[in-house]
Order: sequence, then C-alpha cells, then structure tokens
Amino acid sequence: MVRDDSPGSRPLGVHSEVGRLRKVLVCSPGLAHRRLTPSNSGDLLFDDVMWVENAQRDHADFVGKMTSRGVEVVELHDLLAQTMAVPGAKDWLLDRKITPNRVGLGLLDGTRSFLETLEPRQLVDYLIGGLATNDLLDEFRPAYAALLRGDSGAREYLMPPLPNMLYTRDTTCWLYGGVTLNPLYWPARHDETLLMKAVYTFHPDFAGSTVWWGDPEQDWGQATFEGGDVMPVGNGVVLMGMSERTSRQAISQVALALFESGAAKQVVVAGMPRLRAAMHLDTVFTFADRDIVTVYPRIVDEIHTFTLRPDDRPPGVHVTDEGSRAFPEVVAESLGLSKLRLIETGGDVYASERQQWDSGNNAVAVEPGVVFTYDRNTQTNALLRDAGVEVITIVGAELGRGRGGGHCMTCPLIREPVSF
Amino acid sequence: MVRDDSPGSRPLGVHSEVGRLRKVLVCSPGLAHRRLTPSNSGDLLFDDVMWVENAQRDHADFVGKMTSRGVEVVELHDLLAQTMAVPGAKDWLLDRKITPNRVGLGLLDGTRSFLETLEPRQLVDYLIGGLATNDLLDEFRPAYAALLRGDSGAREYLMPPLPNMLYTRDTTCWLYGGVTLNPLYWPARHDETLLMKAVYTFHPDFAGSTVWWGDPEQDWGQATFEGGDVMPVGNGVVLMGMSERTSRQAISQVALALFESGAAKQVVVAGMPRLRAAMHLDTVFTFADRDIVTVYPRIVDEIHTFTLRPDDRPPGVHVTDEGSRAFPEVVAESLGLSKLRLIETGGDVYASERQQWDSGNNAVAVEPGVVFTYDRNTQTNALLRDAGVEVITIVGAELGRGRGGGHCMTCPLIREPVSF
Amino acid sequence: MVRDDSPGSRPLGVHSEVGRLRKVLVCSPGLAHRRLTPSNSGDLLFDDVMWVENAQRDHADFVGKMTSRGVEVVELHDLLAQTMAVPGAKDWLLDRKITPNRVGLGLLDGTRSFLETLEPRQLVDYLIGGLATNDLLDEFRPAYAALLRGDSGAREYLMPPLPNMLYTRDTTCWLYGGVTLNPLYWPARHDETLLMKAVYTFHPDFAGSTVWWGDPEQDWGQATFEGGDVMPVGNGVVLMGMSERTSRQAISQVALALFESGAAKQVVVAGMPRLRAAMHLDTVFTFADRDIVTVYPRIVDEIHTFTLRPDDRPPGVHVTDEGSRAFPEVVAESLGLSKLRLIETGGDVYASERQQWDSGNNAVAVEPGVVFTYDRNTQTNALLRDAGVEVITIVGAELGRGRGGGHCMTCPLIREPVSF
Amino acid sequence: MVRDDSPGSRPLGVHSEVGRLRKVLVCSPGLAHRRLTPSNSGDLLFDDVMWVENAQRDHADFVGKMTSRGVEVVELHDLLAQTMAVPGAKDWLLDRKITPNRVGLGLLDGTRSFLETLEPRQLVDYLIGGLATNDLLDEFRPAYAALLRGDSGAREYLMPPLPNMLYTRDTTCWLYGGVTLNPLYWPARHDETLLMKAVYTFHPDFAGSTVWWGDPEQDWGQATFEGGDVMPVGNGVVLMGMSERTSRQAISQVALALFESGAAKQVVVAGMPRLRAAMHLDTVFTFADRDIVTVYPRIVDEIHTFTLRPDDRPPGVHVTDEGSRAFPEVVAESLGLSKLRLIETGGDVYASERQQWDSGNNAVAVEPGVVFTYDRNTQTNALLRDAGVEVITIVGAELGRGRGGGHCMTCPLIREPVSF
Repeated sequence: MVRDDSPGSRPLGVHSEVGRLRKVLVCSPGLAHRRLTPSNSGDLLFDDVMWVENAQRDHADFVGKMTSRGVEVVELHDLLAQTMAVPGAKDWLLDRKITPNRVGLGLLDGTRSFLETLEPRQLVDYLIGGLATNDLLDEFRPAYAALLRGDSGAREYLMPPLPNMLYTRDTTCWLYGGVTLNPLYWPARHDETLLMKAVYTFHPDFAGSTVWWGDPEQDWGQATFEGGDVMPVGNGVVLMGMSERTSRQAISQVALALFESGAAKQVVVAGMPRLRAAMHLDTVFTFADRDIVTVYPRIVDEIHTFTLRPDDRPPGVHVTDEGSRAFPEVVAESLGLSKLRLIETGGDVYASERQQWDSGNNAVAVEPGVVFTYDRNTQTNALLRDAGVEVITIVGAELGRGRGGGHCMTCPLIREPVSF
Repeated sequence: MVRDDSPGSRPLGVHSEVGRLRKVLVCSPGLAHRRLTPSNSGDLLFDDVMWVENAQRDHADFVGKMTSRGVEVVELHDLLAQTMAVPGAKDWLLDRKITPNRVGLGLLDGTRSFLETLEPRQLVDYLIGGLATNDLLDEFRPAYAALLRGDSGAREYLMPPLPNMLYTRDTTCWLYGGVTLNPLYWPARHDETLLMKAVYTFHPDFAGSTVWWGDPEQDWGQATFEGGDVMPVGNGVVLMGMSERTSRQAISQVALALFESGAAKQVVVAGMPRLRAAMHLDTVFTFADRDIVTVYPRIVDEIHTFTLRPDDRPPGVHVTDEGSRAFPEVVAESLGLSKLRLIETGGDVYASERQQWDSGNNAVAVEPGVVFTYDRNTQTNALLRDAGVEVITIVGAELGRGRGGGHCMTCPLIREPVSF
Repeated sequence: MVRDDSPGSRPLGVHSEVGRLRKVLVCSPGLAHRRLTPSNSGDLLFDDVMWVENAQRDHADFVGKMTSRGVEVVELHDLLAQTMAVPGAKDWLLDRKITPNRVGLGLLDGTRSFLETLEPRQLVDYLIGGLATNDLLDEFRPAYAALLRGDSGAREYLMPPLPNMLYTRDTTCWLYGGVTLNPLYWPARHDETLLMKAVYTFHPDFAGSTVWWGDPEQDWGQATFEGGDVMPVGNGVVLMGMSERTSRQAISQVALALFESGAAKQVVVAGMPRLRAAMHLDTVFTFADRDIVTVYPRIVDEIHTFTLRPDDRPPGVHVTDEGSRAFPEVVAESLGLSKLRLIETGGDVYASERQQWDSGNNAVAVEPGVVFTYDRNTQTNALLRDAGVEVITIVGAELGRGRGGGHCMTCPLIREPVSF
Repeated sequence: MVRDDSPGSRPLGVHSEVGRLRKVLVCSPGLAHRRLTPSNSGDLLFDDVMWVENAQRDHADFVGKMTSRGVEVVELHDLLAQTMAVPGAKDWLLDRKITPNRVGLGLLDGTRSFLETLEPRQLVDYLIGGLATNDLLDEFRPAYAALLRGDSGAREYLMPPLPNMLYTRDTTCWLYGGVTLNPLYWPARHDETLLMKAVYTFHPDFAGSTVWWGDPEQDWGQATFEGGDVMPVGNGVVLMGMSERTSRQAISQVALALFESGAAKQVVVAGMPRLRAAMHLDTVFTFADRDIVTVYPRIVDEIHTFTLRPDDRPPGVHVTDEGSRAFPEVVAESLGLSKLRLIETGGDVYASERQQWDSGNNAVAVEPGVVFTYDRNTQTNALLRDAGVEVITIVGAELGRGRGGGHCMTCPLIREPVSF
C-alpha cells in the first residue's frame, strides 16, 4: 500500500486521543519480566508472574496489528540500542547509572568494565532488564563482592530491572507539540525516565524536541506525573487525573507550562477517589471515538472535577471547582460537544468489576472509531461493537498481569487532530 | 480401540500415584468463578480473577486429552445433578444448607421455595456456584430482605460459592480401597465436602464405598486434611504432607484407620516448612514414573521426615523421626527402590521459583511415564522429556490462577497398582 | 458501709445500660497475655504485646474502684476454679477440650493425665492461658511428640490461649432476665463460650439460669453474635449492632427468642459500615446516663437503622427499615425520650480519630451519670464532665492494646432498670 | 555539685559507646505525635498511636535523669529555634522546604507568607510537627486551595510531620571527631536530615564541625545509613549493621571516609538477617559496659560478620569475610578483649521475643556500667543488674510505640573514650 503521508517526514506531536495514530512507542516484554518471581513481583508492581515467551508473542501480535493499520511502531530496545550507538550517549548514561550510591564503591570499576564489554543491544537488555549481582562475571567480581549476601544476592541488582517500561504511556507524554519527561510515583520506576532522557538527548529523531516539563536528574518531591493520567484530547484541552500517582503539585506546573507556551488553553482535572482500582484515569475512562468513551461508572461517578485556565495573576493558573457536575459533562463541554456517549463496563456486578480490573476500560484508538482492547473483556467489547466501534482484540492473558492494557502499552509520538 | 477392561466394572480404588488411571473426578469452571472479583478473590483463596470462558475451554481440552488416553472422566456438576435426582438426596442436602444459621430466619422459606422450583442441573449450578442474595427472585424476597445491605448485598450469599471445587484432589481421597471425606482447612471450602457426602450417600456408583475417615457434619477442630498432601504411592505406603492445611491431628487418625483395616502398613510424613509456597506436598513433589519425581529443591530439602507404622500399644501408631535423612531417600526405601530419580524445577533462580509457583511440580500421571502438566513451565517440561517422560501439556493461563495444576484438578477414583 | 441490698440475694438480670450495677463479671490479665508476642499477636487479635504485670495492676485498680462503688465483682479465674471443684465439671470440660481432633491421638492420654494432676486453680490458668506443647512435662510426652516441630512447637497449643477473655462483655450477654451464650466470630475465641457453658452448667450461682439462645457445642455457621454489639437499654428495647462480627442471621434468632418469651418488645438494629474502626457498636456508641451517649460521629452518622418487632406471621419478626433517620433518633424514640444528648469524641480531626481508637467511646456506667473510661482520652473525658457526668478513669496504657475499654471488659450480671 | 569539666568547653566528639556521656541531643514528643492516627500511623512508621501528654512526661523524666547524672541535654526544638534566629537560617531552610514540588505552585506564596508571620519557636513546631493544609489560615488560602480534597485535606501536608525525629540517634552520628548527615531509608524521614543540616550550617555550637559524609540536598540512591546501625565503640573501631535500612553502598563510603582521615582503622559489619525484628543493630545488640553487651540471641546468632580495613589499592577498603565466626567474638577481638560478656534478653521464649520487641536490647550507657532502659523489660533488666550493671529505668508505655528505646532516642554529641 502506498502512503504519501510517511510519518518520518512529520514532526512528533500528539493532537488528540482518537485521531489517526501515525507513530507510537512500545516496549517488548523481556529480561525484566524474566526477573519477576512470586516473592519480588509486588516490589516491582506486578500482581503476578508472567510467561514471558507468550507475553512476547502477544505483544508482537499487537505490534503487527498496529503496523498493518499503517502505524509506525518504534520499539524501545531498538531505539535505545540506536541511542547507545551515538557517540557520548553510553558514557552519559553509565555515568549516571554506575555510581557509588547505586552499585557500591567496591563494584564500581568491575560493573563499568563489564558493561563496557557489551554490544549496544546486550547493554540495552541489561539497562531495561536489570543487572543482577549474579550477572557479573567472576572476572569482574572483586573481594568486595563478599558483602553481597547469600541467595538474596540473586535478587540484588547493580542496575534495577524495569518491567513497567512495558507501559510506555506513563514515562513520557506528548501533549500537542511538546513532551514531558515524567517524574513517576514509585521509586522502582524512576530510572525509566532517565533512559528516555538519554533518547531525547542523543537520538537524532528525538533530540531537539520541545520539553514542556520534567527532568529525571532533578528531585521532584511530591510533583509526580504519569502518562496514564494524561490525555491531550484536542481543542486545546488536556485531561489530567489527580490520583495517587499524579499530584496537584505536578498538574499545576504542567498546566502553567502549557498555558505559557500557548499549547493548551484548558486543563480538566479529574479528582480521582482514593481506591486502588482508580490507579490512573485511563483505567476507568478512555476514548473510542470523537464522542464515545468507555467508563467504569462506579469510579467515574465519584470523580470531583476541576477546570484550570490561564490567569494573568500569579501563579498563572486559575482553578474552577466544578462541584457536582459529572466529569464526562465537563469534558464534553470543553470539547464543544453537547454530550459524550458513554459505554459502561459490561456484564453484571461481578463481571463489570472484573473487566475493569482486566483493563476493560483501557482502549487505545488507532483512528476515530477503531480501538485495540484485550480479548478477555468480551462483554465490554460487545457493547463497544454495538455502538459502532471497530474493536481489534489482543491477547491479555500474560500482558495484563501488570494491570495495564493497550492504552498503557502505547506512547503515541505522532497522532493527528480530530475536529469537534 | 477396544478395551475389555471397562472401568464401570471395576470397584473404585486408587493403588498408586502413576499406575494406569481408569476413572477420575474433575469439576469444570463455572458460575463460582464468575463470582470472582478483585475485591473478593482473596477471601475465596484465588490470587487473581479468571476469564471463565477460556478456563472452561482449557479444562475441556484437559478432559478430552484424558478421555483420549482411555480415562473415564466424571464431571462433578453432572455427578451432583444425577445425585440430586435420586429420591431423598435433594431434601437431605437442602436440610443441611438452608438453615437459619446460614440464610437467616426471614429468608429460610423464600430461599428453600426458590431452590425447589429449579431443575437438578440449575440447582447444581447454585450449589457449586453459590446463591447470591441478588439471585433470589423478588417473589421470594420477604420484607426481612431489607436487612441485606446496599451493594454489598450483591456479595452476600445464601449458599457460598465454591470456586476451589475446581481442585477436586483436596476434598476427598481414595487411598487404596477406601475414601476419606476431608475436613478442609479454610472455612470457605468446608461445604465442598458436604456436597461430596451427598454423592457418597445417594449416588448409586458411590454409595456403599468404604469411608476410612471424615464426615462434613462433624466438627474436626484442628484435624484438617487435604488431598493435595496425600499420595497412596503403592506397596502399602501413603505419603502425607504435614503442612499448614494438613495437621498431625488428622494424619495420625487417618494413619490409624488405614493400619487397623490393613489398607496400609506405613505412612511417610513430610513435615513441610512453614512457607506459603509449600501449601501442599503436591506443589513441590509429584511422581512422573515409578521412580521419577519432580521436586522443588528449595522446599523439599527443608522437609523433616517421619515414618508412622502400626503399633500394638495405644494409640496404635508408632512414630519414627527420620532425622536428617532426605525425604526422597525415605520414600525410595519405603517403596523398595534403591533411589528416586529427581527432576528439579527448571531454569535459573528466577525461572525455578516462578515455575514452582505456576504449578511446575504439579504433574499428574495417566500411566507410568506419561504426565499432564501446564504448558507454561517450559523448562521443567523439557527436563521431564529429557528423562524420557511423555509430557502432555494443558493451557494454564487461566486455570492456574488459583495456584493449582493437573494434580490438584484431578481426584482419581480408579488407578491401578504398579510394581516396584 | 452497710448495704441491705446485698447482690447475693438478687436474681441475675440486666435491665438497662446505666442503672445501678450490682454484680459484674471480669477476667484478669494473666498467662494468656504472657503468650502474646509480636509474631503471634495478630492471630490472637491483639494489636500489640502487653506488659502483663502492669496490665494486672491496672485491672486490679479498675476492680477496686468498682468494688468501692458497691459493685460485686466476680473474677473469671476464681469463678472457673470454683466451677472445676464441682463434681463432674472438670470431666465435662476436659472431655470436650482434650480430644483427638484438638490435641492429636498420640498426646491424648499424656495431656489428660497431666491436667488431672493439677489443682483447680492451676488447671484454670491453663484453661484460660492456654497449654503449650512445651508446658507438657517430659513424663507425659510420648514418642509421638517427635511430630511437634522445632521452635514452632513452642507456639503450638494443646489447649488454645484465650487472651480475649479479658473482654468478658462479648462472650455472654444478660438481656433482662436471661442470658445468651454467644457464638463468637473469630475461631480463636470460640472456646471462651465453652468455658462459660461449664460455669452456667455447674456453678451453683449460675446453673439454672434462663438461656435465651446459643450453645458452644453446636455449629452456628454465619449466626455469630458478640456482646459488644448488644445493649439492653431498658423499656423492653435491645440495641444490636449488625457488624462484621454480629450477623443478621444471629440477630433475628435472638430477637425472636426475646419476643417469644416476652422479654423484649423491640430490637433496634444498627447496620454498621464495613470499617475496621466499627468493630462493635460499643466502640462508637455507649451510654453515660439515661439520655447521654458518647458517639463517634464519623461512624454513627453512617449507621443504617432498622427496627425489629414481633410479628404474628412466620418467621415471627417484622423488619422496619428506618431509612434516613439517624440512629440516635430512633433509639431515643424507642425509649420514649424526645432526644438523646450526644457527647462526640473530643479534639481535632486527629485527636478524635485517635481517641475512638483508644476506646474513647467505650464508657461503662456504674449508675446513671457515673462512668468508667480510660485516662488517655482526656478530651472526651472533659466533654463528659462538662455534661455533668462523673468520670472515673482507669489506666489504659496496657489494657487498651487489644482495642477494648471498660465497657468491653465488663459483663454485667445484675444491673437495675432505669425509668425514662 | 561542682564539676570542673563543663561540657561547653569540650569539642563535640563521640569516642566510645559506654564512656562518660557529656552532651547529648534529644527531641521531645510534640505536634508530630498529635498527628498520628490509626489510619496514618503506618505511613509514619509508628505501630500505634500515642498519648502525647504522657509521652512528654516520660521523655522529660528521661531528660531529667540524664541531667542529674551530669549530662548536658540539648533538645531539638530549642536547638532549632536558636538556629532559626540566626540571620539567614530561616530563609535557607524555607527556600528548601517551600517549593512548587512540595507545596504546589498555587500555595507557594500563601504558605511562605504564613510561615514568615511566626515566631521562631512556633515555626519550629511546624517544621518538626508538620504543616497540615488545614493549618493554613483562610487569609493565606488562595482559590487554588479548592484542589485540596475533602476530609483527606486534613491529612495533606505542606510540610511533612516528622514524628521519628524522636529517635535522634538515626539522623546524624558522631563517629569520633566528625559527624555524618545520614540519608535515611524511608522517604518519610528524609527531611529530618535537612533540619539537622540547618543546625550544622548555622548554629554557632555546631557550625564548622567536621562532616565525614552525607548531605540531605543530594540524592544518595541506595546509599542509606541510619545511626541505629552505627556504634563507634572505641579503639579505632566502628560497628555497622548492614540491614534493610543501612546498605553496603553507604557503609563502604563511610568506611572509606573514616579510613582516609585516620579517624578509624577498622569497621566491623554485622550482616543482619532480613527480618522485621532486626531493624537496626541497636535493636538486638547494645553495650552496657566495656565488655558487657545485651544481645537478642535469635537474631545475633544469625549475623554474618565482615571486617573492613584500609587498603592501598582502590577502592581503598579491604573486605574480610569472617565466615562462621560469631559477631560478638569478632567485636571482642577488634577491641583487644578476650571475650564479651553477653546478657541475653530475659524470660521464656514468649517473654524474650516480647522484650526484644519492646526495646529490651536498646540500652544506652551514661558511663561504664550504668545504663538507661525501659521499665517494662523487667526480666532483661534483672539480668543486667545480676551482672553488676546499674539500671536506671524510664517509662516506655508511650515512648516505645515507635519501636525505639533509650539508645534510639539519644544522639551523643560528646562521649569520652574508654580503655580496653
């Protein structure tokens, strides 16, 4: 098929939630997931262990289906390997990862020396998959290594595994013409953003991008921000979930940056209830078409909505408390729509709770009215199809065990606007 | 293929762990698993929710593969429906399940009346799947039903769901020529044994069986016993795991009953370490052939072994502390073997821990040297095949979420002896 | 001081929550609390370990203060020792506690023989304090004892420790002229009621009492009932909290028994929210005077109220849903009062939550307007005094660590009515 | 009593664990502990809530007893108030605490303005006790404050409460003639070290001290270090527990700094087992005299010991694995003693576990053979007295609820050497 609109020639930028997806970043399952065991998965934010080979198969199928719909899919291991091949990039990253505070004085030289022997792609496997103390070959283990303890040594890392990199949505967000490098909530995920900074600093396709906010080399305190809570829906509007993981401290800073640059004129904040099932906005609310959203009513009904707009006076952001207005109503108004059509998570009280848990509300659109979802949410998928949405399913048996679906696993790099 | 040894003509009885399997009891996934949600699965002893349709598909495949190997497979919903059709059986069971202590005074008549309207198969769906207060039709709901509270009412049950019935291994055990009706450890599973008592009391193929021990209508206190810990390996020997769930109070009573009837001459007790991964003996140790076992060394090495033998003096059971002897060594000796060949859970430290968790040691033999295992334990399966074992895989993506494999999901009713 | 109204001459019976308290049952801290350690306290339902000597000192001070107000205080160790001295009582109780299901076949004779050697008071120490396997003298340990494992043997019990017996309120309830022998929610507490049945069967001061409901030798299923949820407030009314621990299945049975005997004409049910802080009704709502109650508003405001009244038709209990009416309002009406005066837990949002946790709403009255409370709830105590209530404080530093106060630690045996 | 050796004239420095204590830093309970509630105490690392008035009384008694033994006691609220009065100090600290990442853009000016209105002592109350969003007077609350949510707003902080400041031992350590400013393990405690940096930067008695290592304005990654694990025992030796909270990454850096300056010649590392009861070395092992230590054998027997010594080659630290040698034996040798006399936690298996939990091994010496301990550990205290140690008890009912005793609550500033 001939397309004259090759994505390579377009600048990066995401101008809607459902416009044609041109280019997207994903991260395949791999070594990091082979590290998951019943005793460490909780610390690594996974609910269960994974059959990695099958997860890889299902992820490849997802990528293939996106490709066949005309999306250019960039895979993070590849992207990072290209980045590490850029002069200066490897040193920049290892200077930040192999430090006395991280690996210990006595293992500094051995670890660095070992990593220097690796090909870029091998290095990337360890950068994302983690470098266990046991991975260090004997020739690089000094006497100091005696301090590494017993069997637990097998779990100790010189570089941490980053299995949540699978959910590329969270780490960086393109919001219209610029990107944020997000300070993530859990310390176990902080290094994800550092890897992405290496890409945005050195990779020729990414270097020079406008960065609205965020820098993994700074301490952001309570200002944490995760892409699963953020949706640049178009019309100059950005939706942001204020959740356990995305704080008002971050939201107001990002809003100000967007307002000052003129990239956005309005941020609709979804004050999420404090429930584990309400991890991110995109676990309970995603777009399937210009005016169609999937919602998990038990949580969405509890959202307290605010609108942020530019203000001439400091601090430059004006807050409107939307009071008892329903979140979808405020969103519709911000887009100039009379209303949103709501597709509620399907089935009885048991099935509905189960499907939300299984990422039933975590659809990602490839174009207006065409979404990817997990196969297991049969009832919600049927309701989407009844509403005229084309639903392309992917296998969730393994990929879903970290509690994320197609929306979480994709970081759009180029998405076209839609009109309202 | 013509078989003149039709199982129907043989008496029930299990004479080994790996002899030819003739007849087996299983329980298909169903309504009980549709009740599982993220908020109640812990109480129902499941780690995660299930895609029930796929679990049913995978279970049917398991049944089909056993059937094609010549095993007669009895499904519990069918068996219980046949039982309920026997005069007196339904009243017997409902008299015990629909009581003021269980459903409440004010719902007694309504609940019983509702259940009386059902066909046997519908009734069985509720007996195993649970009867939620919401399932009660309005015409059967008296004013008293106001006491049922809000949305939680949807989770309140008039008869409890029994999703762990999937693991028929635990509830009853055939040990040579007789059966035990086991007092299970968790209250959430107690009613499983009551259903089985109905079968053994009324169903023509089961009534009149020799019952060694156990009665769900009595209170067994600390004497709890689960089939996952029990293996009638042949040669007059029974292995019993002494675990969180199977107590010395029960083990000594069952041993005495077996010794007094002459059914067994020796019980080898595996004193399991107190670890969650050591739930049952069959989660860390199962037989693949006369002298081949799969073991999870990290736990099996910690087992403290005892041998029980008949004693003339009260209480009739003599205990020998095997001290530092390895459990497989004591088992081999009891079977008159010089040694057991051990297949350890495969892969590196991460994979090994993960595969044990994923029931990698939970093989069930259909005949000597032919076992069923989950597909996901690829490394352990490869080691079994290297040892000459024929491995037939079944899909574990959904079925394994309650932490049980092929051994847990099968209750042998007729299995031939093997010679040692 | 001369009192002509000696309690000995009065029949047992509790006719109000604040009438003059004549006779009360308590249980001193002792061996059971010496068994509490950081690793087992959770299983025994305590939040922390206790300095037992100081707990005993503080409990003795509480007893002394009640005695000096003219209350006859019966201590359970004493009462049970007297009971064990009654012919037949010891055999009756040991026949039920020393069984194969509880101690194991091989320890049956040794354990019984050991207990038979003890004086009644020593026996009682083990009945309430628990008999650890390590307590069994070597001469009573057969070869079978090898099965008791390693250090955990020190935690294994032949008779369970009953540290929650300290809270005598829960185990039995006098409701006007009769008593209930309560099936408690947690298995760890079930034996408390068995000990009390021995008292009510054999002790001359208790034998022959009217028992409304309950028998620890039966299985009560979901019909669990705890005295902390039950208040015979007078005027033929009983308040019952419907909580995690006290179920509708039990409430309706007890209500029916009271209605049928004419002992009560109305039960006001407090449907408690499902929160850990709302363990029992008396943790958020107790009486300080005829019309004064301490309340923890954050929970009491969430109570959904029902009224049960006798009904000519089966099942004999009529349910009225009080809808949005406040619980204190329904209670006031049932007593013929225009309103209750509410003393809310004192202090700011932090102090109020803390004081409720520290049993700040768990006052027990010795007569109208005179209550015992813990010293540490200074702000709530000040508010009670401002309302004209005489507050006598007891030291809660150790006694409160099981999350119970004066109301929980007292089981009234004789309390006079009040007029409304 | 006349003492010519006034501490004021001596330089700060700690030269032993049991030499005469001249000057010590403590922190009284206060506002931070009034913030503790059952629902937030876990996040703030406390096991239970506290009766703050009594905790203050008991802490004052502890201070009084130290003073009467000739110790100069510096209280942190006082010290910090003096510091805040030094020109530039308040601005320095507020510039670091009142930032957009911590308080949010829209509350920056209001919060800073509010704090500027306070007297130094009031400011210190909030610096240690936390500034809740509700503490902000209305006149300082902009429209932006609408984003603060519901009742949870009461729990949201503009400056975090620091209740663990009570345990001054952890935050900074004097090791011979210099101090470390420790990166603490839990984020909830990080700001403690920032407050101490203000003291060491501005207060005339502390400014100019030699700082061996640590700076709260840097990110220390895995290099965490807590004073409860650190003991400058004399003879050029420092003991360091390698625990959950104190990592090898930090230990090797501190050891190198001490070796390079010549302050120490040997570090004995106690590799602690991974158990909650083994939080810090001083929870299981403290000195009562030159050669007398209290030990909790169940944990101390599990310690794996290493010795670090200076090395000419990089990284400058040589590690010796002491293999199966007992920790006390290695410590004795390092001090030139033939052996240490061990006082084991007293009582039976229950009491011993309980007393360790209640800080029974957390003695702090005021001079050789004279220690402070909690009153509740009666059995361990008796054993210490039997060994000739003078035991001065303090009340632990409230102070111990954060799981720390006298050793944890004291940060020695001047302690004399002892000879071995």
